[in-house]
Amino acid sequence: MLTRFILIETSHAGNVGGAARALKVMGFDDLVLVKPRWANVLRREETIQRASGANDVLDKARIVETLDEALDGISHLCATAMTPRDFGPPTLAPRAHFSQLLGGGAASEEQGARPQGVGFLFGSERFGMKNEDVYRCHACLSIPTNPGFGSLNLAAAVQLIAYDWREALGSFPLAPATDEQAPADARSVSGMLDHLEQALVAVDFLDPAAPKKLMPRLNQLFNRADPTDEEIHILRGVAKAMLRTADKAKR
Amino acid sequence: MLTRFILIETSHAGNVGGAARALKVMGFDDLVLVKPRWANVLRREETIQRASGANDVLDKARIVETLDEALDGISHLCATAMTPRDFGPPTLAPRAHFSQLLGGGAASEEQGARPQGVGFLFGSERFGMKNEDVYRCHACLSIPTNPGFGSLNLAAAVQLIAYDWREALGSFPLAPATDEQAPADARSVSGMLDHLEQALVAVDFLDPAAPKKLMPRLNQLFNRADPTDEEIHILRGVAKAMLRTADKAKR
Repeated sequence: MLTRFILIETSHAGNVGGAARALKVMGFDDLVLVKPRWANVLRREETIQRASGANDVLDKARIVETLDEALDGISHLCATAMTPRDFGPPTLAPRAHFSQLLGGGAASEEQGARPQGVGFLFGSERFGMKNEDVYRCHACLSIPTNPGFGSLNLAAAVQLIAYDWREALGSFPLAPATDEQAPADARSVSGMLDHLEQALVAVDFLDPAAPKKLMPRLNQLFNRADPTDEEIHILRGVAKAMLRTADKAKR
Repeated sequence: MLTRFILIETSHAGNVGGAARALKVMGFDDLVLVKPRWANVLRREETIQRASGANDVLDKARIVETLDEALDGISHLCATAMTPRDFGPPTLAPRAHFSQLLGGGAASEEQGARPQGVGFLFGSERFGMKNEDVYRCHACLSIPTNPGFGSLNLAAAVQLIAYDWREALGSFPLAPATDEQAPADARSVSGMLDHLEQALVAVDFLDPAAPKKLMPRLNQLFNRADPTDEEIHILRGVAKAMLRTADKAKR
């Protein structure tokens, strides 16, 4: 789905770079700046430094004079604002709104089809969004923050919205470690515990005449640990070494 | 729940400030730095600037020499790493893991009680986390990112984890606009549409002899718009003015 991030009257070059990086890391690349403080902001050193390799997003970014010029193809417009506006669109948490917008919510059938394109508006660092810009939006997204300190950095806000939107569209896959293994079955665990029990007796830690609850406790510990076959193998090796050492000690 | 953010060998002062701000905005305040590049990083100008008012988090932050010194009270330790490590803890997406950890997931009953305290570890900007630090963790959190560009800024990663953890613990409330009103009932909408229909006839837009589907279409439009009573009142005012003007035009 067409997804555009629109920064209005941004004053810090670092935030433009940070926003470009935040977009790219979540797989988006459509950035439009409305009347930024610096006309050359896309080429400033601080911008490029904070973009940290998201140069293609900066290269593709557009600078426009009015919000209107940023809205082609966008059928659903979201303001981001800490302070809701009277007579403005409803104030919604991003996750709940995205879920509804994409058909996960109860109201989605009534609301009709998915939007053609979605635009996210971000106001200036000092003044946030102007009322007149908020009024044009279908929703006012408010990231739930500390009631005593809602001061979210602009690039951080872009990052959070980009993340929530990406997760709502369908998350990127995780890269699992290559060796992730299925847990061993209960029979293997039980065999290992028998082996370990012999070893604990051999090193005089467990008294067979008064075992108390040592083995059930170790069983619970290993159940919680969900060992793999390879780990069972390691633990059996430890038991074997304990038995061998105890045997030597007796001689 | 005790929640600590632990930054290991952080090199950029700006990221320490950004992390402090990210914590505070999500209602956390326990920040520990393990061997930061600058011993005075908590008092550097760039740190304080990027913290943007989260000075209390900086004041409370501790600097320690080893990871061990950062772990008091923490019973569940999460690495954050883009690259999973063989023989390391399982690689998990933050949202899924937090839901399971707090009792929302299927495996939670088996896994026993909630942790006493949770620690989130973040490696250095250049090298990420060391294997030996990842191995100590119960989980390796991987924020799902663009497979072609996973370069998440350190403060942005702290912001995303803080946000997901806060949402999992129970979101902060939204501040709704003071005038958010319930939608008008269908009878009010229907009355307004009758009024509007008369007005549309009066201004010669609607031909009663060939109405086509104008009114059902407007009805659908207004149903989707879910107007409030106040908006119905405005629309009736418009209809009234149209009728009055049409009346004058006839004289």
